[in-house]
Amino acid sequence: GHVATGQERHYGNCTGLGHYPGADASLCGMAATGASGTNAVRYGAMRPNVLNLRVVLPDGRLLHTAGPGRHPRKRAAGYDLTSLFVGSEGTLGFLTQATLRLHPLPEASAVTIASFPSVGAAVACTVQVLQAAVPVARIEFLDEVMADACSRFSEMELPVAATLLLELHGSQRSLAEQQQQTEEIVHQNGGSSVAWAEGQEERERLWSMRHNAWYAALALRPGCQGYSTDVCVPISRLPDVVVETKQDLQASNITGPMVGHVGDGNFHCILVFNSQDPEEAQRIHAFTERLGRRALAAGGTCTGEHGVGLGKRALLQEELGPEGLDTLRSIKAALDPHNLMNPGKVL
Amino acid sequence: GHVATGQERHYGNCTGLGHYPGADASLCGMAATGASGTNAVRYGAMRPNVLNLRVVLPDGRLLHTAGPGRHPRKRAAGYDLTSLFVGSEGTLGFLTQATLRLHPLPEASAVTIASFPSVGAAVACTVQVLQAAVPVARIEFLDEVMADACSRFSEMELPVAATLLLELHGSQRSLAEQQQQTEEIVHQNGGSSVAWAEGQEERERLWSMRHNAWYAALALRPGCQGYSTDVCVPISRLPDVVVETKQDLQASNITGPMVGHVGDGNFHCILVFNSQDPEEAQRIHAFTERLGRRALAAGGTCTGEHGVGLGKRALLQEELGPEGLDTLRSIKAALDPHNLMNPGKVL
Repeated sequence: GHVATGQERHYGNCTGLGHYPGADASLCGMAATGASGTNAVRYGAMRPNVLNLRVVLPDGRLLHTAGPGRHPRKRAAGYDLTSLFVGSEGTLGFLTQATLRLHPLPEASAVTIASFPSVGAAVACTVQVLQAAVPVARIEFLDEVMADACSRFSEMELPVAATLLLELHGSQRSLAEQQQQTEEIVHQNGGSSVAWAEGQEERERLWSMRHNAWYAALALRPGCQGYSTDVCVPISRLPDVVVETKQDLQASNITGPMVGHVGDGNFHCILVFNSQDPEEAQRIHAFTERLGRRALAAGGTCTGEHGVGLGKRALLQEELGPEGLDTLRSIKAALDPHNLMNPGKVL
Repeated sequence: GHVATGQERHYGNCTGLGHYPGADASLCGMAATGASGTNAVRYGAMRPNVLNLRVVLPDGRLLHTAGPGRHPRKRAAGYDLTSLFVGSEGTLGFLTQATLRLHPLPEASAVTIASFPSVGAAVACTVQVLQAAVPVARIEFLDEVMADACSRFSEMELPVAATLLLELHGSQRSLAEQQQQTEEIVHQNGGSSVAWAEGQEERERLWSMRHNAWYAALALRPGCQGYSTDVCVPISRLPDVVVETKQDLQASNITGPMVGHVGDGNFHCILVFNSQDPEEAQRIHAFTERLGRRALAAGGTCTGEHGVGLGKRALLQEELGPEGLDTLRSIKAALDPHNLMNPGKVL
């Protein structure tokens, strides 16, 4: 069991090397936060992959959100309680069991790293890969600051450039076609990519670079603290929002490499700052508020996967408006009338 | 705008020929019932394809479930109100606008019809196609009664046998591979299939047979009434549940051809009966209760896509148990305290 709060990371100095933040999440914690990650673009975030949850209700009773022992692929029987508890951040009940949908392992996988002349080109490439209906399994963006930090941290000798990590899944034959389509779109956007890694060890080596992004970011300013925030916007607005955010980071003199699940329109800034410096901490705070509002202005959300927790309650109000917030509050009051479950979070 | 009730069909005699039941549904009606259909196995039912809903709340205010004007692909900002209102059958609010996720049109499509020596073989083939990770776009089952009725109604000369309609989507090259994989699995299960239809006109001719299933069923007993019910079970339990249901139909002397979105574990019986005969109407009612309970006993749901409406309220209680039902009632009471919205439905 796991009562999750918002996942926004605010760790101390980099001491737990080799352990990727998030990799130790429990399945019920991931369900409670509505988590997602690199594979979500193809396989979905937690919500569509949870078929049932066992929940300890505030009065101590056990609820099975789809009924005890049930796991059909789809249901039209009453309100979707499973989707309500996924992403509820522990504020409606305590999740103690999750029934998940499984996906077949792909016959073959291939990974490449592509470097682009600009952030805009990398993001435009992402949009075009999706529009071409390439069933991409993962498509991860790193801005040139993040690519450089990861490259040095993992000793990879990547170009200092806006970068995409792309993974394809399929049969051997369909993989060849996807690779060709992907390469064409990369080249059309002025990008160049390394040879496809198909063996497991080589693929894992490329992904370990991405998975160490947090530590690579912290290593940019030894002794400083990291704070990872996320937003998510409609894909069509992603290039503008990413470019504006980069300009904001530069104008604000903030170390904040960008990394993102751009296939979903979702990206992070890993903000590295001296928490002993009140002026810098204030600058970081002001930047995250602007980032959230920029996502909202683009028709997006203040959080695509980290959750609201304590830090984004004001942004949530702006995102939903009074009718939405009143509806959330009515649900919270109905299911947890004594405000026992993770009080103060989200609402 | 559209306040939907349960979609269970209980039409009069077959008079509106040429108009497939359900084909005139509004998008908000489909959202309100959590509808799905033949494409759901690949593209999902309504819920994962709705990004935002505009809802008239019982007090007259307008709620945008994902916030006004927002449509990111994923969100972790507060409870998932969109998924709550999808499938709420008009009991929480009145849906007046839906923002939907779109999928690229496939480059190429191909359809075949496969005939099998038994119902069990056809359903086993379905399970194996999914397990082999063939990204099947539609996989529809017709039992031999339905296949025969459709064949005669649409003048197709199909074998009187358990039948699958299979549609594949992809690039030309990936289609060839999917076709080969599919044919292998069909043959391994003792099935034989017709040549793949790839042109639009020919594909539509095959699907029109399926889309006329309702009228083909009614034509089995002219002057009688039709009632279509649905259940959904975990795929692994589907062969047993389908075979038991066929035996039940025969033992109960009911005309009830079976047709189903078997890739989701979801199937229908189109029950054709003389509504003037109280004994027969009672037999139909008892059969639908047994069908619902059989699905529940197999870890499934009493409805995969038709909804609860009035007719399945008792089954919903058995499906969810008291904790689940109390939770639904708490939500209903919180959001519609005066019970104004579609009163008496679902709960």
